Amino acid sequence: MASDGFRPLDDKSLAEYIKATPSLSSKLGNQIDELQIKEVGDGNLNFVYIVTSPSGSFVIKQALPYIRCIGESWPMTKERAYFEAVTLKEHGRLCPDHVPEVYHFDRAMSLIGMRYLEPPHIILRKGLIAGIEYPLLAEHISEYMARTLFFTSLIYHTTTEHKQAVAEFCGNVELCRLTEQVVFSDPYKVSQYNHWTSPYLDRDAEAVREDNTLKLEVAELKSMFCERAQALIHGDLHTGSVMVTSDSTQVIDPEFAFYGPMGFDIGAFVGNLILAFFAQDGHADPKNDRKAYKDWLLRTIEETWNLFHKKFTALLDKHKDGSGEAYLPAIYNNPQLQQLVKQKFMSDLFHDALGFGAAKMIRRIVGVAHVEDFESIADAGVRADCERRALDFAKMLLKERRKFQGITEVVSAIQKVH
Amino acid sequence: MASDGFRPLDDKSLAEYIKATPSLSSKLGNQIDELQIKEVGDGNLNFVYIVTSPSGSFVIKQALPYIRCIGESWPMTKERAYFEAVTLKEHGRLCPDHVPEVYHFDRAMSLIGMRYLEPPHIILRKGLIAGIEYPLLAEHISEYMARTLFFTSLIYHTTTEHKQAVAEFCGNVELCRLTEQVVFSDPYKVSQYNHWTSPYLDRDAEAVREDNTLKLEVAELKSMFCERAQALIHGDLHTGSVMVTSDSTQVIDPEFAFYGPMGFDIGAFVGNLILAFFAQDGHADPKNDRKAYKDWLLRTIEETWNLFHKKFTALLDKHKDGSGEAYLPAIYNNPQLQQLVKQKFMSDLFHDALGFGAAKMIRRIVGVAHVEDFESIADAGVRADCERRALDFAKMLLKERRKFQGITEVVSAIQKVH
Repeated sequence: MASDGFRPLDDKSLAEYIKATPSLSSKLGNQIDELQIKEVGDGNLNFVYIVTSPSGSFVIKQALPYIRCIGESWPMTKERAYFEAVTLKEHGRLCPDHVPEVYHFDRAMSLIGMRYLEPPHIILRKGLIAGIEYPLLAEHISEYMARTLFFTSLIYHTTTEHKQAVAEFCGNVELCRLTEQVVFSDPYKVSQYNHWTSPYLDRDAEAVREDNTLKLEVAELKSMFCERAQALIHGDLHTGSVMVTSDSTQVIDPEFAFYGPMGFDIGAFVGNLILAFFAQDGHADPKNDRKAYKDWLLRTIEETWNLFHKKFTALLDKHKDGSGEAYLPAIYNNPQLQQLVKQKFMSDLFHDALGFGAAKMIRRIVGVAHVEDFESIADAGVRADCERRALDFAKMLLKERRKFQGITEVVSAIQKVH
Repeated sequence: MASDGFRPLDDKSLAEYIKATPSLSSKLGNQIDELQIKEVGDGNLNFVYIVTSPSGSFVIKQALPYIRCIGESWPMTKERAYFEAVTLKEHGRLCPDHVPEVYHFDRAMSLIGMRYLEPPHIILRKGLIAGIEYPLLAEHISEYMARTLFFTSLIYHTTTEHKQAVAEFCGNVELCRLTEQVVFSDPYKVSQYNHWTSPYLDRDAEAVREDNTLKLEVAELKSMFCERAQALIHGDLHTGSVMVTSDSTQVIDPEFAFYGPMGFDIGAFVGNLILAFFAQDGHADPKNDRKAYKDWLLRTIEETWNLFHKKFTALLDKHKDGSGEAYLPAIYNNPQLQQLVKQKFMSDLFHDALGFGAAKMIRRIVGVAHVEDFESIADAGVRADCERRALDFAKMLLKERRKFQGITEVVSAIQKVH
């Protein structure tokens, strides 16, 4: 054991750890001699174990002091587990239906014990690749976003509550820096970590690195990401951070959480749905042309924003006489003004979300970490065609985002690409 | 002595304190038996003593746990002295010519010992009321703003440095809350602290409270003030926070400092110069119509922004290959793009500054704390006329700020009021 109390676990030492930890062993009905442990971490960063016994289960997630998918050559603070645990608890308190419960947190061990999202839960991204429709997805994710973003912002908080929380999450700086690098920097310059479907997209990747207008817009988004402490955002809300069944939607992996711009979460989710859309042609086969599924994806994109808009503005209405600092009831004291405030807030947020969503799309095509939506398309030429359409759309969206008045116009623009 | 080590000093106990504090007594050549102590605090918040001996001098500033000009009924953390001392040292390191040196800081006592700005130094606001021209003022204050704002922003800082500093200054939340209240909230609602030149401006004050468009814009500025950690700003850079002679400009009283939007400092200074301009007609007399002085004020407003622009963009050029996170040299790698980035940054900052400046003007006419520029106009009718012109201009500037392309247009608009 290192002097800081940290030791990386394996199947065997984890079993010992569980036996010594009542908050975990009790979840197994104390049937700890019959427990089964399976390492399943397929993400980029951490080790994840499913632990089951005949009468219970949970997941153990341990952060190691480097990025798993790169290796020890890219160190990364294991303190991220602390910010993940705090955020799971806070977002879980605000939206318990869509955040798994935390049973146990060990800061020294960077270890979280939490609800096992049992089958048929799968990672949403895998469902989207398989062409599965989730009729409640937009409803659920918009609920999660509306509640977590609203209740951690100054619309609901006093300044005192807000600044204290902002200060704490400034500690998650290493994860913020990682996002700054892989989302806002590397795709726009030559970087050893960048890759793309070569040689097909060589010229496209070069064009991203040579696009002054694009870089100017990215600078604005990066500045907002770094400077604007608007709400406790998830920080990595792509379709790989959501687990789903036909009637359950669970948001996981908020280790990138910090007080940042709300649009970053909304954009991450919507941007990844758009990526899923552009990947569908690569998954079509003679039995399934994916046309109906593409329509469902577009409907889900539209509904996600529209339901978020509805839920968020409903929270604004409901709490308009609350103690949030942003819109004091004694000032914003007439329906016409309240309407103006809502419209301006939602319009600005919409444009932020489009900008961040586009940036998240671009980085998944020419940056370090790609998405399985495209990677699973075996034919490189087909994959490159899908990726190029997504990339071109994202570049347009990032540059022209302020011209879009609503999500319907965005969906129309997506449809026009094909 | 209170259990936290704090005790409010008076002339006598301060003398004892100085004798027991080598960093202070040494500044007096240890001639502590001949020291003279004079309380001179005329600000809103603190007690200030000038301490002199035949061979040296300094100023002692002590924060008490309430707001001096209101009394013990408005408590205010004395920890503000800590943030003032940290900022004096940091801004002093960045711009030693225009920030008084700190000799001593006692956190438990909320006490700062610093350079005595000897006569003929006076508070700039008093000089502006007296009609004194300061030919180097724009040069000096633009130097102070350019250096302090540039070097504490992400244009120069890494994210790691930035977030650590942001987190620390989140602790100055009580002073931030005071600004939120008196600048962005109280003037736009009924508040016991508001006052104005009554009955002349009764209808004007009411109009501010009923102006939906104005309130919508103020919400945006308040959100930026609360959320955007752009640089370590002074936080209260009006003309009462600057001491001047014909060849010296010294910025004092940064107890409101925190990581906030750069435009708040620039706007505070420029907005108070505009207030000084609109007050001049109230100071005119048969011997001096103040016309030439008003021209000097307008020139100084114009030069302050233009010199700030020149100095800030020169710093951008000079450090374009530095380690700041905002504009990585590998991305912003061609002169055309660098030019675009500069233009966009300065244009956004200009509009922020106009907005904040206008908000600072409004609050000085219908809010709690007024300015001597107007208060010293004895005839209430004359005073109200001056204030109304300033208020109307500020309302227009706040609402229409994005239409102004440069400071020359702002000066033209000011001239058109008369």
